Amino acid sequence: MILCLCFEYNCAWIEHSSEIQGIAMKIGLLGHGVVGSGVAEIIDSGRSAEVKDLRVEKMLVRTRQEVTEARITTEVSEILNDPEIEVIAECMGGLEPAHTYVKTALEYGKSVVSSNKKMLAAYYSELMEIAEKNHVMLRMEAAVGGGIPCMENLMRIRRIEPIDSFRGIFNGTTNYILSAMKEEQKEFDEMLKGAQAAGYAERNPGDDIDGFDVRYKVALTCAQAFDALVDPSDIPTFGIRNIHSEDLLHAEERNRTIKLIGWAEDHGDSVMAMVMPVFVKDSDYLSRIPCNLNGIESFSRTLGKAGFVGQGAGSLPTAHAVVQDLIDVSEGRKEVSRNLKKKTVNCRDRKGVYYIRTKQPEVFAEVVAEKLDQNCLITEQVEWKKLEGLLNQAADPDLFLAEVQA
Amino acid sequence: MILCLCFEYNCAWIEHSSEIQGIAMKIGLLGHGVVGSGVAEIIDSGRSAEVKDLRVEKMLVRTRQEVTEARITTEVSEILNDPEIEVIAECMGGLEPAHTYVKTALEYGKSVVSSNKKMLAAYYSELMEIAEKNHVMLRMEAAVGGGIPCMENLMRIRRIEPIDSFRGIFNGTTNYILSAMKEEQKEFDEMLKGAQAAGYAERNPGDDIDGFDVRYKVALTCAQAFDALVDPSDIPTFGIRNIHSEDLLHAEERNRTIKLIGWAEDHGDSVMAMVMPVFVKDSDYLSRIPCNLNGIESFSRTLGKAGFVGQGAGSLPTAHAVVQDLIDVSEGRKEVSRNLKKKTVNCRDRKGVYYIRTKQPEVFAEVVAEKLDQNCLITEQVEWKKLEGLLNQAADPDLFLAEVQA
Ligand SMILES: NC(=O)c1ccc[n+]([C@@H]2O[C@H](COP(=O)([O-])OP(=O)(O)OC[C@H]3O[C@@H](n4cnc5c(N)ncnc54)[C@H](OP(=O)(O)O)[C@@H]3O)[C@@H](O)[C@H]2O)c1
Ligand SMILES: NC(=O)c1ccc[n+]([C@@H]2O[C@H](COP(=O)([O-])OP(=O)(O)OC[C@H]3O[C@@H](n4cnc5c(N)ncnc54)[C@H](OP(=O)(O)O)[C@@H]3O)[C@@H](O)[C@H]2O)c1
Repeated sequence: MILCLCFEYNCAWIEHSSEIQGIAMKIGLLGHGVVGSGVAEIIDSGRSAEVKDLRVEKMLVRTRQEVTEARITTEVSEILNDPEIEVIAECMGGLEPAHTYVKTALEYGKSVVSSNKKMLAAYYSELMEIAEKNHVMLRMEAAVGGGIPCMENLMRIRRIEPIDSFRGIFNGTTNYILSAMKEEQKEFDEMLKGAQAAGYAERNPGDDIDGFDVRYKVALTCAQAFDALVDPSDIPTFGIRNIHSEDLLHAEERNRTIKLIGWAEDHGDSVMAMVMPVFVKDSDYLSRIPCNLNGIESFSRTLGKAGFVGQGAGSLPTAHAVVQDLIDVSEGRKEVSRNLKKKTVNCRDRKGVYYIRTKQPEVFAEVVAEKLDQNCLITEQVEWKKLEGLLNQAADPDLFLAEVQA
Repeated sequence: MILCLCFEYNCAWIEHSSEIQGIAMKIGLLGHGVVGSGVAEIIDSGRSAEVKDLRVEKMLVRTRQEVTEARITTEVSEILNDPEIEVIAECMGGLEPAHTYVKTALEYGKSVVSSNKKMLAAYYSELMEIAEKNHVMLRMEAAVGGGIPCMENLMRIRRIEPIDSFRGIFNGTTNYILSAMKEEQKEFDEMLKGAQAAGYAERNPGDDIDGFDVRYKVALTCAQAFDALVDPSDIPTFGIRNIHSEDLLHAEERNRTIKLIGWAEDHGDSVMAMVMPVFVKDSDYLSRIPCNLNGIESFSRTLGKAGFVGQGAGSLPTAHAVVQDLIDVSEGRKEVSRNLKKKTVNCRDRKGVYYIRTKQPEVFAEVVAEKLDQNCLITEQVEWKKLEGLLNQAADPDLFLAEVQA
């Protein structure tokens, strides 16, 4: 709690600060899984003055068996109704009840930090509006790029200038699989099983391998970078479910490495945004982001390229990002003034060269630049609206598509 | 100026803020060269609310001929003695008079932002002490990594945990030369001339190509990351002046790319820090940092690797970093509590494998693992104290040394 009398000075940005010597900011933690337990571990071990100013007051779990200490509860109301709890850290995942809990917390005047990209992407504008109305913060560093401080750094750049575009490797699971396929020259299914065994992929990996996880993150990054509210389902999204080792070889022949890339450009009234495997040039450092690491970069007029590389997932790195947000809430970090606007996603005029493997190569005859073998081809430069039509026409469920980096 | 009455709250961190609606923070700019003119351009063009809260009030130039507008002066006293100027941005370069001007400004209660790594590395502890005593800020984002926000992000990590080590490409000029040598397969002298013509290298490029520029930056980063005050001249430093194209070929045969790397580890009472060309593995993304870009990464317990890539130099990117610091001063950015300590540099026990090209290969006979040709060899794993002795014994002014990344 802050006790501060200010005149001729707008104190809004420090009103949530708990940073008075000795009084720690009390946090309600929703979810005690991979990320949540990491958050508790980092805060409980208090390795800095800033972290010692935080306290996990209560933690929500699902079942009685998980109640192993006094702070743990199965009753969310004990957390949301506790007036001493200033901030909620939501690390439960899923749409509901996460969305309702976060919404309620904001309405009760609590700031919220969340790692839940799926929920945030679905309810971004609703939640931001409630946060603003209640003069509390909604922060989400961990939701994009895991431990990588990209959300904060994008906001810092925006203190000086608009961000024109961004691109990057946003998903650790698929990057792990692609790296392992390249290194061990094995097929996708085997590598997916390996990733699951190593704890890098979930039992139900659809969101990751079909590109939806990247889609959520690209949508959130459009909001962070451009103030653009886009409908995630409008972002053309292709994953790596259909990849074969021969696709990697075709990339290699062109001195390229396949990475699952999300990218977006702010076009004013609309946004160009896509999620797709890309034949990344071997001279591009994104081609060398290994294992489950992520690499995200933005472009703006004076700074140019600003790239960030690090752990895109994992308990402690992701929890680190959650705790960074919590410290920012505790310090009453001044936020950049925003002007959130609904924008359509428009990729129709985007030109690209594509690699396609399909059982229906004849459908793409009019755009072929090079036939690699019976099923694999490279297109000439083609507009997305044209290619999209052909993809729909082919309607090949096993088709693999990748953009070839120019 | 801030007018703020606070009780039960430590307001030190906001006392320099000028962020009252409508009153811009007045800045005195020392130097109007490559970086200084970029700072003026970014602030004058005011592309954000935050930048509009800044105003370049006066600019120092050397000669009358350069006085082309009312804000420009040749009299430093007009700036240092102006009580309305709250912050100095020093972009002059050189040791003196930059050092005296910065010291005076701090003593007069002005915060200082500087891009001058050479001066900052030489006077770091003196200047930090004066800044602290006078409750003003001394920030230096642009001094390390140009536009890359590494200094700020290191401090953010330290809000949670100590930083254990860092490494990176800290110099754009040498990276440009090394990239061009590899791509165009030409010799060093020719590429240096090319870099000078392209504006990437100074007329007197000694600080860059002999590694001293990286040494200053490593020393400053040791202070930022570890709170370690080290004597820059104690850091073993090797540059690329003696590099030949055959060295690049020897690296290529090992699937490695030569980069000039600075690195350091915090060992508690001492610091292990070095500056040296390294045969970087082609699978490491630092091997793919092109042209004049820089790439710097830190390692800490929970976050793991945190890498930053961007423009290591250039007028607008470097100026962007200066302006970021100015906004942080204007917003009264809370600083991490520091505990600066003198630490010795100790690399004696550091073990490495090295590539050596020398006219005195016989000196290294006892540590050779592989002879590549008459003059080139790869050592076995050897302690630095051992190798240093042999290097002194060889006393070969044309020797080229590089660590081979394990
Ligand atoms: N893991 C990562 O590396 C990572 C990285 C970035 C972002 N994220 C995001 O962070 C969030 C959490 O991920 P995670 O990996 O930590 O998942 P997790 O290990 O499954 O943890 C979530 C925890 O929340 C609990 N929970 C869910 N609904 C609950 C409810 N209604 N009441 C009480 N407890 C409930 C779960 O219990 P049950 O097991 O009983 O369902 C589980 O213990 C997700 O949104 C994820 O996308 C994760
Ligand atoms: N250029 C980059 O990309 C870059 C990147 C990172 C950091 N930096 C650092 O930033 C600093 C400035 O670099 P820069 O490239 O902008 O150098 P620069 O182009 O030479 O600009 C320095 C300016 O300061 C002026 N100056 C020097 N001493 C002066 C004095 N006593 N009185 C008045 N004016 C004086 C110089 O005038 P004269 O020409 O008459 O001497 C020159 O116009 C250096 O410390 C450099 O290491 C530069």
